[in-house]
Amino acid sequence: MAINKVGKDIPDVFVQQYGIYEGELAHIDDYKEAVRNIHPVKPRDKKMLNSIREAIEKTGLKDGMTISFHHHFREGDFVINMVMDEIAKMGIKNLSIAPSSIANVHEPLIGHIKKGVVTHITSSGLRDKVGAAISEGIMENPVVIRSHGGRARAIVRGDIHIDVAFLGAPSSDEYGNVNGSAGRTTCGSLGYAMVDAKYADKVVVITDSLMPYPNTPISIPQTDVDYVVVVDAIGDPAGIAKGATRFTKNPKELLIAEYASKVITNSPYYKEGFSFQTGTGGASLAVSRFLKDAMIEDGIKASFALGGITNAMVELLEEGLVGKIMDVQGFDHPSAISLAKNANHYEIDAIMYASPLSKGSVINQLDTAILSALEIDTDFNVNVITGSDGIIRGASGGHSDTSAACKMCLVISPLIRGRIPTIVDTVNTVVTPGSSVDVVVTEVGIAINPERKDLIEHFRMLDVPQFTIKQLKDIAYSIVGAPDPIEYGDKVVALIEYRDGTIIDVVKNV
Amino acid sequence: MAINKVGKDIPDVFVQQYGIYEGELAHIDDYKEAVRNIHPVKPRDKKMLNSIREAIEKTGLKDGMTISFHHHFREGDFVINMVMDEIAKMGIKNLSIAPSSIANVHEPLIGHIKKGVVTHITSSGLRDKVGAAISEGIMENPVVIRSHGGRARAIVRGDIHIDVAFLGAPSSDEYGNVNGSAGRTTCGSLGYAMVDAKYADKVVVITDSLMPYPNTPISIPQTDVDYVVVVDAIGDPAGIAKGATRFTKNPKELLIAEYASKVITNSPYYKEGFSFQTGTGGASLAVSRFLKDAMIEDGIKASFALGGITNAMVELLEEGLVGKIMDVQGFDHPSAISLAKNANHYEIDAIMYASPLSKGSVINQLDTAILSALEIDTDFNVNVITGSDGIIRGASGGHSDTSAACKMCLVISPLIRGRIPTIVDTVNTVVTPGSSVDVVVTEVGIAINPERKDLIEHFRMLDVPQFTIKQLKDIAYSIVGAPDPIEYGDKVVALIEYRDGTIIDVVKNV
Repeated sequence: MAINKVGKDIPDVFVQQYGIYEGELAHIDDYKEAVRNIHPVKPRDKKMLNSIREAIEKTGLKDGMTISFHHHFREGDFVINMVMDEIAKMGIKNLSIAPSSIANVHEPLIGHIKKGVVTHITSSGLRDKVGAAISEGIMENPVVIRSHGGRARAIVRGDIHIDVAFLGAPSSDEYGNVNGSAGRTTCGSLGYAMVDAKYADKVVVITDSLMPYPNTPISIPQTDVDYVVVVDAIGDPAGIAKGATRFTKNPKELLIAEYASKVITNSPYYKEGFSFQTGTGGASLAVSRFLKDAMIEDGIKASFALGGITNAMVELLEEGLVGKIMDVQGFDHPSAISLAKNANHYEIDAIMYASPLSKGSVINQLDTAILSALEIDTDFNVNVITGSDGIIRGASGGHSDTSAACKMCLVISPLIRGRIPTIVDTVNTVVTPGSSVDVVVTEVGIAINPERKDLIEHFRMLDVPQFTIKQLKDIAYSIVGAPDPIEYGDKVVALIEYRDGTIIDVVKNV
Repeated sequence: MAINKVGKDIPDVFVQQYGIYEGELAHIDDYKEAVRNIHPVKPRDKKMLNSIREAIEKTGLKDGMTISFHHHFREGDFVINMVMDEIAKMGIKNLSIAPSSIANVHEPLIGHIKKGVVTHITSSGLRDKVGAAISEGIMENPVVIRSHGGRARAIVRGDIHIDVAFLGAPSSDEYGNVNGSAGRTTCGSLGYAMVDAKYADKVVVITDSLMPYPNTPISIPQTDVDYVVVVDAIGDPAGIAKGATRFTKNPKELLIAEYASKVITNSPYYKEGFSFQTGTGGASLAVSRFLKDAMIEDGIKASFALGGITNAMVELLEEGLVGKIMDVQGFDHPSAISLAKNANHYEIDAIMYASPLSKGSVINQLDTAILSALEIDTDFNVNVITGSDGIIRGASGGHSDTSAACKMCLVISPLIRGRIPTIVDTVNTVVTPGSSVDVVVTEVGIAINPERKDLIEHFRMLDVPQFTIKQLKDIAYSIVGAPDPIEYGDKVVALIEYRDGTIIDVVKNV
């Protein structure tokens, strides 16, 4: 065992394989980029195949290989299940799967795991039944949870070598030029898929909307694609937007949003040309609304907005309050349409979004980010992966990336969820180290990280109640009591990789 | 010595190093992509430097390394001379330079070669004084002439490993997001530079137009850029368009264009959705004009046009006669403006344009190309690199790429230039093998490659005079006589690499 910088005991076997977390910038080292094997396509060669099965055969997929998928269709994805079913029927076993994330709809994975088709998983997150099954301990090997920037890093550095990427494409031509803004199942940006396409040995594009050549704009170019398969449907458009809520009317969320907005607009970063990232939760979307009003009143415009994009952001762009949107992932139909028609709405891949080992990601230029949390502890560490019952049900996402890189990171959260405190002594699982978090915002007030003496000084007169993080915890505990400790087993079911590839925490079975 | 498939004796030393040309598709083999070394840029790091000298120092450039440049500024480029002057002053020696091409303005290179600063060169072409000096034999090591697709292949496969790329950027922000369609020295597409940026260990962006962050559209992303330097001027916009002539009034050129247009519009490929590439010479531009009239009359539209782009092509796009332009290089200001404002005018890199080892380049989808020639021989081999005096003065360009990949390649040329025949028994230098050439078009008529029995049959009733290639040669010789043989020396001054990396010919000193 070795204790890492956030105080977590990491078992030796993982220490040796990954190293332990030693600080945000402790392992940003020079490296050689990963190598892919290329089978050139000659002038008269065709890429169109008749079925997913034929594609699996042509790629030479074998037992023990690594395959990948993207999660841009979110709860509407049909691709993972279609491909995995076919692979299972073909009797291929012992696969590593490396989707950018896993959703509720991917419940059939449980069967593939139990039958030995899937033996290794890396993902940003695990939801509902798949998360519960993993937390029960159905896999021999722990799932590796990676942030969006961390996954990009892992692929670029060769920590993940993708043998075959199966990429759902809202539109493609016969030669594999793909975009996400045309077709029947538009998802907008293909930022995660673009990385897989660049580094996988073999890339299979699966589409339900075949376009005339050349299909532009091009998110994934023909030069990254080996085969194209047309199927009836790659996803359910309604499922893409699921969970991306409209503006909240919940008074607690509105108060959090108002406080967050005040922190931002009174910060040293709020000036002409500032930049921000918001999430998709109700409070987070409400922050955009408050920010918008402030920007109009103050005559201030943002240079760019970043992140998972929703209609709320698109409206700011169209109203001229935001100069540009940098879009790695869209959460609704309006954001896909905006990407297609507005030149200032720009698609970026996950490397450019957040890889800590790139020549500079966009989050490095970000002023402020508003991020959510399942738990925050009195060291400001954040858990976004396990529930209060210790079961995996969340996703790492861009949380540890954005918070580490931006100039001021706000973590917003209600003080209590149900009868469970959100601010706690020790989070069940550390995904984001407290050193990355600058301000915690709740409905009772804010707590500024004591390391940010500059912000404490700057916000001295701020018209928002201020507490220490321990005081916020005490208030929470005074209302609902201290949370019961979770009774974990001894088996490590998930590794929480920090964005640099070291282990920041492990999750044990429940 | 070994004799290659176009009958050329290649000295053993080069046979061993490169292999000999054995046919268009003989060496399209699987391979591992080249690797770059990446120095990650951390959140608070800056990329802006004060001078080219500081950039050279920061990159760690040393004796014996390889540096690259792009030729998008053509005769207006200031970057190569600025950087090479600074390097020479710093006393760095024995460099390999790998610009995408070399222009007349780069005459100062002769001094750098003579002083040992530059000891190896690879380029698409060499013009005027630099070409003459190379042909005289001032270098110990032969220049390696590569096609545009061949250069991309060489970089992607690691045959060229670029230690430092110095890339002139019409516009860039402080973090290195670059495009060619904004700024003071707009050149449009940065298709060649994009490849260097992706594969070089270190990339220095040199700009005279600094933009606010994030500068979009992004041709070269921040994730491919290490340093940014601002200088007074990177080029002369007038020099970019130099040589890209307007429509010709020369009756000989007009006749060639008319015949070429008839070949195309009567070919089996001329139908709704066909595609074509034209060059920039007077006759080539005139072909676009004739094609345009035919397309309007026949109610036929092209799906895409490809290549070095001029205003003539932009007009076809704007008039709806061409669906999309795929642009690896622009030759005038209107094409740069069109790229910026028209979503159907699409920038592609040189890998996607023409690399024979990619997963499929755009030329593989091309129906017909109109290419020029300095000489064509009775085996249909084409010389675009050496003059009738044997001196290097041309450029390989996309000639051997496009002709090999498209469905019907037209090589257009006057029968005679000055008092020198263009159709000859044997070309001085083979750049494109005769097997890639389908139809030769002159002002007296056409000759169809006898290998294309389908075209011979198809064009039986074509309203254009038809000859064998030997008959065309005989007509040329009957007017001006056979050309005098060139008295070459024994020293190999240039290797002509075929697009697959093998040697198709060598050029000796004159």
